[in-house]
Amino acid sequence: MNLLLPFLLAASPSAPGVLDDGMWTFDNPPLEKFAKDHGFKPDKDWFDRVRLACVRFPGGSGSFVSADGLVMTNHHVGFDTIQKLSTKEKDLVKNGFYAPTREDELKPPDLELRVLESTEDVTKRVQAAVKEGASPKEANDQRKAEMARIEKEEKEKTGLECSVVNLYQGGLFHVYRYKVHSDVRLVFAPEQQVAFYGGDPDNFTYPRYDLDCAFFRVYEDGKPYRPKSWFRWSASGPKDGELVFVSGNPGSTGRLMTLAQIEYDRDILLPQTLKYGHGMRAALKAYSARGEQEERQAKDDLFSVENGIKARTGYLGGLENPQVMARKKAEEEQLLSTLGADSKEGVALSKAISAIAAARKGIIPTATRMRYSRADAFLAGVALNLVRMTAELEKKNEDRLPEYRDTALDSLKRQIFSARPVYLDLEEAKLTESFRQGLKELGPDDPFVKAALGGKTPAEAAKAALRGTKLGAAEKDQIEAAVAERKRLADGGTKAIAESTDPMIVLARTVDPILRGLRKKTEDELESVETLNAETISKARFAAYGRSIWPDATFTLRLSYGVVKGYEEDTTLVPYKTTFAGLYERHAAFDGKPPFDLPARWIERRDRLNLATPLNFVCTADIIGGNSGSPVINKDAEIVGLIFDGNIQSLPNRYVYDDVMARAVAVHSAGMVEAMKKLFDAGALAEELTAVGGR
Amino acid sequence: MNLLLPFLLAASPSAPGVLDDGMWTFDNPPLEKFAKDHGFKPDKDWFDRVRLACVRFPGGSGSFVSADGLVMTNHHVGFDTIQKLSTKEKDLVKNGFYAPTREDELKPPDLELRVLESTEDVTKRVQAAVKEGASPKEANDQRKAEMARIEKEEKEKTGLECSVVNLYQGGLFHVYRYKVHSDVRLVFAPEQQVAFYGGDPDNFTYPRYDLDCAFFRVYEDGKPYRPKSWFRWSASGPKDGELVFVSGNPGSTGRLMTLAQIEYDRDILLPQTLKYGHGMRAALKAYSARGEQEERQAKDDLFSVENGIKARTGYLGGLENPQVMARKKAEEEQLLSTLGADSKEGVALSKAISAIAAARKGIIPTATRMRYSRADAFLAGVALNLVRMTAELEKKNEDRLPEYRDTALDSLKRQIFSARPVYLDLEEAKLTESFRQGLKELGPDDPFVKAALGGKTPAEAAKAALRGTKLGAAEKDQIEAAVAERKRLADGGTKAIAESTDPMIVLARTVDPILRGLRKKTEDELESVETLNAETISKARFAAYGRSIWPDATFTLRLSYGVVKGYEEDTTLVPYKTTFAGLYERHAAFDGKPPFDLPARWIERRDRLNLATPLNFVCTADIIGGNSGSPVINKDAEIVGLIFDGNIQSLPNRYVYDDVMARAVAVHSAGMVEAMKKLFDAGALAEELTAVGGR
Repeated sequence: MNLLLPFLLAASPSAPGVLDDGMWTFDNPPLEKFAKDHGFKPDKDWFDRVRLACVRFPGGSGSFVSADGLVMTNHHVGFDTIQKLSTKEKDLVKNGFYAPTREDELKPPDLELRVLESTEDVTKRVQAAVKEGASPKEANDQRKAEMARIEKEEKEKTGLECSVVNLYQGGLFHVYRYKVHSDVRLVFAPEQQVAFYGGDPDNFTYPRYDLDCAFFRVYEDGKPYRPKSWFRWSASGPKDGELVFVSGNPGSTGRLMTLAQIEYDRDILLPQTLKYGHGMRAALKAYSARGEQEERQAKDDLFSVENGIKARTGYLGGLENPQVMARKKAEEEQLLSTLGADSKEGVALSKAISAIAAARKGIIPTATRMRYSRADAFLAGVALNLVRMTAELEKKNEDRLPEYRDTALDSLKRQIFSARPVYLDLEEAKLTESFRQGLKELGPDDPFVKAALGGKTPAEAAKAALRGTKLGAAEKDQIEAAVAERKRLADGGTKAIAESTDPMIVLARTVDPILRGLRKKTEDELESVETLNAETISKARFAAYGRSIWPDATFTLRLSYGVVKGYEEDTTLVPYKTTFAGLYERHAAFDGKPPFDLPARWIERRDRLNLATPLNFVCTADIIGGNSGSPVINKDAEIVGLIFDGNIQSLPNRYVYDDVMARAVAVHSAGMVEAMKKLFDAGALAEELTAVGGR
Repeated sequence: MNLLLPFLLAASPSAPGVLDDGMWTFDNPPLEKFAKDHGFKPDKDWFDRVRLACVRFPGGSGSFVSADGLVMTNHHVGFDTIQKLSTKEKDLVKNGFYAPTREDELKPPDLELRVLESTEDVTKRVQAAVKEGASPKEANDQRKAEMARIEKEEKEKTGLECSVVNLYQGGLFHVYRYKVHSDVRLVFAPEQQVAFYGGDPDNFTYPRYDLDCAFFRVYEDGKPYRPKSWFRWSASGPKDGELVFVSGNPGSTGRLMTLAQIEYDRDILLPQTLKYGHGMRAALKAYSARGEQEERQAKDDLFSVENGIKARTGYLGGLENPQVMARKKAEEEQLLSTLGADSKEGVALSKAISAIAAARKGIIPTATRMRYSRADAFLAGVALNLVRMTAELEKKNEDRLPEYRDTALDSLKRQIFSARPVYLDLEEAKLTESFRQGLKELGPDDPFVKAALGGKTPAEAAKAALRGTKLGAAEKDQIEAAVAERKRLADGGTKAIAESTDPMIVLARTVDPILRGLRKKTEDELESVETLNAETISKARFAAYGRSIWPDATFTLRLSYGVVKGYEEDTTLVPYKTTFAGLYERHAAFDGKPPFDLPARWIERRDRLNLATPLNFVCTADIIGGNSGSPVINKDAEIVGLIFDGNIQSLPNRYVYDDVMARAVAVHSAGMVEAMKKLFDAGALAEELTAVGGR
């Protein structure tokens, strides 16, 4: 069943650039570059072992690190779960957590991990589904329907969760088959304050001193799961200059975007997203300022908004650099001249590029409406999912919106029926801010604004939608009733939805047709044009460079690589690693003031630590959001670190890779073990990680 | 005799800017700003105490810090002396030094300190010396001759070393009277490696971890000198946000320069100086690479060249920022519009600005010749001084070049007759590089190049000039003979010089007329025009702003002030202080590799230290080269720190002050004492510093 074909790299003229860039699919790793630039020649077994030891978290990455199903990821990837497991009495976010025995491990309500079991090329079938003479819109629909059919068939055949992944923007379609683990329990988490030491200021910063790790254990049939593959642990970690690999799920990059698409990001997408983010940040900060409870409730949302702002400011900074844009332009020109501007492929390429530019320009009003037609509250999402799911389930599988297809339903339902606490005041604050920005940017006559506000002010409308809803609650006993109500609506189908007077359902019912309309318009006028033309561009790239290029990130498993390496900044040197001494330096230098305070354990037990133990390090591996929690491994496929961030200089890498100062930031393997042993009395966990033994 | 008038600040419209900028003369401190912005109202006694506790080092600053004549400065200010006191057997540069008793204190060959006893305004007399109808050149000569007469008279009257200082570029002339101390002994110096931790990469960097201090003791009549005033020690150092003062001798700034003068720096001066510096750095590095001995010999020169390169790169970076130039332009326009463009002053101002611009343009060929007509070796300087001194001493005092006037002679002779070791191979390497650049930039037909090379290659000419010279040597027994030979030549006057066949004297005799010619041309065509017109501009500024502005730095005593304050950089926060933990962090992060290695003492005794003790800190005080070694004091005039650097962002402050990220970097008072006590067993010294007692 394993149809990975890692040795098919065609000998073809190189794509531009000779750097250690790339987020490679496991079927097409850059073997020549590994061998030529680094003298490393891994065999097929190496790639299989690595792939099968990796797991995907919701929004992030992770890996198996013991024979007993222990999984490593970032604290910030596990944060949502850690928060859900916290109570007023037992604040795991603040105090950290360690389960000395299996029995102490905590099961969260709704965490799922996925392991990529196999992939297979289905390009021909997907492309053949498009009928002769189909319009772009029709072609898009036909392609999507075929993808849905494949996913369903594959699931039935294999019992695995299957999804067709569009690689190279329509150049290739592969089916990815995942084993899903839904019994996952928390084993270890440090205090959030050291996992995210330095808070928003130090986010995307290096030198850095974060113990951003968390450990879970996968269970199957009530017993620790024995993974097919898992990574052994390197106690010493990486050396300066060492070749390392990062295997994880980068979310989204724009390396193969056309100049027009990038300009759109620069001029429309990023400025709008940032404007929205700034408003939401202010709203969440105001909410946090109400008290300690509120601060804890809003922490995850605030982190996510601040993180988004910093990341996008970095992306935008890159695009505002004329050199970056010049490089993208040169890449586009090089591709054209490699093919020959007058060749058949060259003419088709130029036409495709122009078509995309026109579509981007045309979509601006619709995109702006979509940007600000928002109801950013957890329950608004639940309500909209209930409204849509009941409606979609009445359709044939392949006619549904993709997120409601059979293959996606299990997972979706776990989200909808999650027993997480819902803080209605926080929900109201967020919803108010969404509505406020909608009104401000789109005006009172916009269809979404009209439907969502119904003549009220944003604050009144948000209050009205949340007061009286039965869909969520904060207290344990009420949560069950809320989940039951969601289930009742789901089971009752469109009829139950139509009859519901729950104000969140009413809101969702009212805005659903408007949001669907905007989505459809975008699919028909932008997505279909782009998919069609991206396919042309993709073919042109293959013709020019073969598969020596890699597809833009798609939140699927990729392999990056690079060297452990410091850099020059501001005329001085930045070291390749940091140590515990640096954490205490930063603490003392700011007089221990937040966000540079340290939990009591770290002050009291400081003298137990060897302060020269490495804590974080950097490498040139090509990563982006989604790679959080990815293992950093050496040539022997041993864990040397744990990716948790990129430095601020790495953000423009979204569009153009550069390794002068751009670095991926990781927690050091030695630092994790040192903290576990000396500060958390978690010797058993450290033992399990560092135990010598076969895989 | 003390004619300081600190309370004359006119109430006049403010000059542009409301920041804590300024290097103020002690007769005109910004009392209103102290009071208004910081609520601080020091009395006259405060200023007198501070001024009399300050000393000037050659090229730097320092201060009295005990009743027994103890003086604090930077290690890098004392470095030249510490190096001279080192021997092969006893390397004080590498191992540091501490004299537990008075008897152990080491007397260097030629160190002199100066204390500013008093100042007096002599503007009227200097300006009156210029005769009606004098040309700019004549006026310049007449002014200079009068300044020489004043200096001589003042010296005879007071017994002090006196010099007339041109303030506000011809706006005011003050006579400064100095008490000179020439018995100064070394008490304490840490290892250079921690004084200059991080080497060239960390130079001009912050956060920083340098113990850049050295302590000397002034003697008089063989006994410790009892200074009139000295600073007490603050054991705790400064708080975040605290108001502090820096009193020292900033060397040179360009805040009052016209736009044309600044453009000249940007386009001619700085690029040429950098080009020369890069060549000299390469030559010194090649020399250092020959062996350990050579590395030690070249260390001081290399530091000074690298320091110059980094500083000038920063200055140039500032001027290449269009915003900086726009601000200078705006300042010029504001001055003109404050006066009225058509007013008498306004018309004169415009004319003066144009005249300076024309002179700068005209001087470029001469300036370029001067830049590359160089013989950068210690003995070349000695030889040229001997040739010139003997010739100048045959003239009347006021007709001499200023550096050969009676008032300057004692000091000059101490330099010429210094018993410092001279490494002839290093001299040859430097001379070769000077000649090489001269030939390259000016061509073989240039008069200096012709005279210096005499048809030889640069390497041959340098070798010829140094092989066989009797003016310098490296070994102790030979040094005496070399100094005796210099004395013989000096005593023998122009006749002995004319008859000498010493190749260094021959070289100096040959190039002297050419260098004098270039200097004269510059004085006549640039300096005289600038002095005359700067006076006009200065008067315009006084008319517009009164004395609410301060004169550009002149390596004379100034008072700066600011607050202790971190800053934002790269979207994160930089703390106001660093601690010993950070030093060990940087050591560990670079695996102890040079320039981040630590002396054995620091490794072995680390556990004795309280790592949270502050080591360095930053403040917004306005400083520049020459301020090295300046005390940082609090409102109670207690030592809280010791200036040793500015961060890289402060370098453009040479032309335009800014306090967003620009900071002065200081050693923390607590850090010095901690290291003395815990690492150097220098408890007695720490006691002397922190002893409670009246001044």
